[in-house]
Amino acid sequence: MKFSDQKIIVTGCASGIGAKTCELLKKEGATVIGVDRNPTTQFVDEFHHADLSDPVSIDALIEALPSGANGLLNIAGVPPTAGATLVLQVNLLALKRLTLGCVDKLADNAAIVNVASLAGVGWPEAIPSIKAASSLVDFDQVGAFCEEHNIDDARSYAFSKEALITWTMQNRWTWRDRGIRMNCVSPGPVETPILKDFIATLGKRVEEDMKVMDRPGTPDDIAPAIVFLASADSVWIRGTNLACDGGMFNHIQCAMNDLL
Amino acid sequence: MKFSDQKIIVTGCASGIGAKTCELLKKEGATVIGVDRNPTTQFVDEFHHADLSDPVSIDALIEALPSGANGLLNIAGVPPTAGATLVLQVNLLALKRLTLGCVDKLADNAAIVNVASLAGVGWPEAIPSIKAASSLVDFDQVGAFCEEHNIDDARSYAFSKEALITWTMQNRWTWRDRGIRMNCVSPGPVETPILKDFIATLGKRVEEDMKVMDRPGTPDDIAPAIVFLASADSVWIRGTNLACDGGMFNHIQCAMNDLL
Repeated sequence: MKFSDQKIIVTGCASGIGAKTCELLKKEGATVIGVDRNPTTQFVDEFHHADLSDPVSIDALIEALPSGANGLLNIAGVPPTAGATLVLQVNLLALKRLTLGCVDKLADNAAIVNVASLAGVGWPEAIPSIKAASSLVDFDQVGAFCEEHNIDDARSYAFSKEALITWTMQNRWTWRDRGIRMNCVSPGPVETPILKDFIATLGKRVEEDMKVMDRPGTPDDIAPAIVFLASADSVWIRGTNLACDGGMFNHIQCAMNDLL
Repeated sequence: MKFSDQKIIVTGCASGIGAKTCELLKKEGATVIGVDRNPTTQFVDEFHHADLSDPVSIDALIEALPSGANGLLNIAGVPPTAGATLVLQVNLLALKRLTLGCVDKLADNAAIVNVASLAGVGWPEAIPSIKAASSLVDFDQVGAFCEEHNIDDARSYAFSKEALITWTMQNRWTWRDRGIRMNCVSPGPVETPILKDFIATLGKRVEEDMKVMDRPGTPDDIAPAIVFLASADSVWIRGTNLACDGGMFNHIQCAMNDLL
């Protein structure tokens, strides 16, 4: 089994893509260390409660997590209905704080996988704001940052994912002397408990995407790609954003390059 | 095992990345249908000889290959030392001819995987020539095409891979009613029998890349990514180019976007 004797930390383990990822990891022999704001015992060997909107809770989590994990899968995230401040706090600042706080405790050759989104496809057009966000670490300053950079609720989700894709890319080699690599997976619309929240905020865009696609994705479609990037099978993949969206990202790339 | 009861066609099965891919597929229970210009019995259940520079040989191969294969892995390719005409014939025209000739015979839900290259990273800058190449099917017209589009030996390899990445993207949905998907993997420099040919033609570029990277890749690094894209684990990935190069593609993307 691919994950025998491996300990994998999974945030967002209680539902959707996170729960499915834990299930697959267990099947492959992993010891799963689950993190969520909602308690669960399903597909999890050890559970840690955390509130990723609260830096005190994140720091306590970092302290509590076991040493020597072979993977850190950052799957937890909030939808645009959470509001701009919470979206950036959880989807970007918390993810970075947890990852940077854990990396010293990870085993050599560990894999870090971040769940980004098709919504982050426009990162090359947002470099100045993304660069400004790279020094944003204080959770209390997120509101002011959003105001300064015109990031409203509807924009916040895409921005959090653009910044995450960019951060993953920039850290392609940060820990390579220890064999630790980081990649991300970008799902398109997925049938999870938060799909209705995306439709509520992004509305037309999501509904049009789902018409162009033959169907929305499911956690069954996405979790195996996360597991691949967590496994030794992806050892030569570093800093990459893997589109896992039924072809939507490539559809957009074709449209942008006059290739339809 | 992931490939029990599956028949997978692998071109370039006799050496390098192709041979390693066959080995992994066999371990996962696949029946491997190998294609190469050099005979081999290693990791192959059924071997077909073919000369991919010759359309007659390709058409005979299409005829000879069994029906109902669950995967077509286009791994065969020639290095820049082969000369521009042969590079375009084998790496682009033959691959497309074989794929289009086989697709009706493939099983529903089959996976097509093309081996492109980090050298194809510049495809967005070559759209006009790539579009012109899309109607190039006659092997005898390749020489004239190269002359008209200023494609010399050194440029030919990159161009063949740019066109391949683009073609894969454009066909993200061509066969989705049958569940057939196509993706590509782009290795960076890899320690295979043809690495010396790359250094002979592309020289400095490859040597500089290998200095920026911590080491060249190996078939062990690349084959598992091909196997992933051939498996049901990647069912929601369509038309994607997966960089498998130790981070070089993302290093280039960072440099191009002022993110180093």
